Amino acid sequence: MRILITAGGTSEKIDDVRSITNHSSGRLGVAIANAFYDETTTIDYVTTNSAQKPSNTNINLHLISDTKNLSATLESLLSQNHYDAVIHSMAVSDFTPATSLSEEQLLTVLNRLLKNYQGNSLNMTDLKNEIRELEELPVTEKKISSETDHLFLILKKNPKIIQLIKQLQPETILVGFKLLVDVSFNELYTVAMNSIKKNQADFILANDLTKVGEKQHLGYLIAQDGSYTTGTTKQEIAELIKAAIVTASKK
Amino acid sequence: MRILITAGGTSEKIDDVRSITNHSSGRLGVAIANAFYDETTTIDYVTTNSAQKPSNTNINLHLISDTKNLSATLESLLSQNHYDAVIHSMAVSDFTPATSLSEEQLLTVLNRLLKNYQGNSLNMTDLKNEIRELEELPVTEKKISSETDHLFLILKKNPKIIQLIKQLQPETILVGFKLLVDVSFNELYTVAMNSIKKNQADFILANDLTKVGEKQHLGYLIAQDGSYTTGTTKQEIAELIKAAIVTASKK
Repeated sequence: MRILITAGGTSEKIDDVRSITNHSSGRLGVAIANAFYDETTTIDYVTTNSAQKPSNTNINLHLISDTKNLSATLESLLSQNHYDAVIHSMAVSDFTPATSLSEEQLLTVLNRLLKNYQGNSLNMTDLKNEIRELEELPVTEKKISSETDHLFLILKKNPKIIQLIKQLQPETILVGFKLLVDVSFNELYTVAMNSIKKNQADFILANDLTKVGEKQHLGYLIAQDGSYTTGTTKQEIAELIKAAIVTASKK
Repeated sequence: MRILITAGGTSEKIDDVRSITNHSSGRLGVAIANAFYDETTTIDYVTTNSAQKPSNTNINLHLISDTKNLSATLESLLSQNHYDAVIHSMAVSDFTPATSLSEEQLLTVLNRLLKNYQGNSLNMTDLKNEIRELEELPVTEKKISSETDHLFLILKKNPKIIQLIKQLQPETILVGFKLLVDVSFNELYTVAMNSIKKNQADFILANDLTKVGEKQHLGYLIAQDGSYTTGTTKQEIAELIKAAIVTASKK
């Protein structure tokens, strides 16, 4: 058996000294790697520098930092190897910084808009065109100056990396992850079912940050047919995922 | 002798799963702690969870995450203890996320501006008032939705924490740090001298990210009178700082 696990959280550079980081200790990924670890399983493990890592030395570690690295690494691994399952637990940045404006720069942009759209209103197409122009401004600053009382960051949405997985290996068993914050079970379940459809996932592990701690970790492993099992610790969740993959890979 | 060292980089929350982080491995802080470490010196060491830490167990570790924590911790330490020197090497976030807007929300804001300022232009006071209104919007989202092609983050400037130090302990020897990216020596020197004046620092360790690596680390320890010494590794920089403090504390 060969499996691919992603864990930890990506960071996207704002400038040479600052990043936007998605938090993830990497502990759940470690629990999953430990659950699968035996002599007959090859594990490729994609994670970040700052995340906790499995201690077994014959797991193949691949370190990435941002969504671009992650995407390139997954493309390379998925085109070189056949995986029985891909467990994509990494917290991936939804957005990447495109450009930043100081108060002075924002004032110039707003006054240009006031002049160009005199007496009219903007529609969404206008707004998107204006944003595109701003994004094309050359980024000249390596470290953003702090000489402004406010800084305006424009972030653009990243491509959904999870969708790469089934595009490159339609036959693999894909386990995706969905983390929401302080929602009802119904909302969590609905969002997870949508994620299964959008990303062609076989399973989604759905969890709520308010129920995630060092010792407890409430997670629902939801299958394509809507059925689910419940784990209350990282170890239980890891075992649920392993059992589901072993069963599915025998079909 | 009792000294206070700060090291690592602060993180500021955007929402419950994302932060803006200032990078800093914490290795220079470790080198400084090691240089000072002996039986007669008490070291309070303020750093973050993710930074490297000194291995000597009788250094007093104080963990912080954001600039608010840092400020509270420094206030408490500086009001409880007398420090012969404070070495503030931590990379502190200049800005904190105040609010975020989706494309839809930005469109609404811009059309309100177009209506209110018809035929006129905005000045800086108008802009600051408009920003203040946006900042006062209640933040309802615990995890920002990714259902927008662009996200607009408004960041507000943090108070300068380094200025706390001499306000609370005018007699302490303060070593500040200035990291720029890819500038000339003259620019680095000028910015460092300004920082000495603004923050009442006794010394500034000025360095340029393009000359900072695992093994090499070019740094200039600049004194109030404009004289400076040069170190080429973290250990050399740490020894320069120690020597300067020992000399200054004998005066």
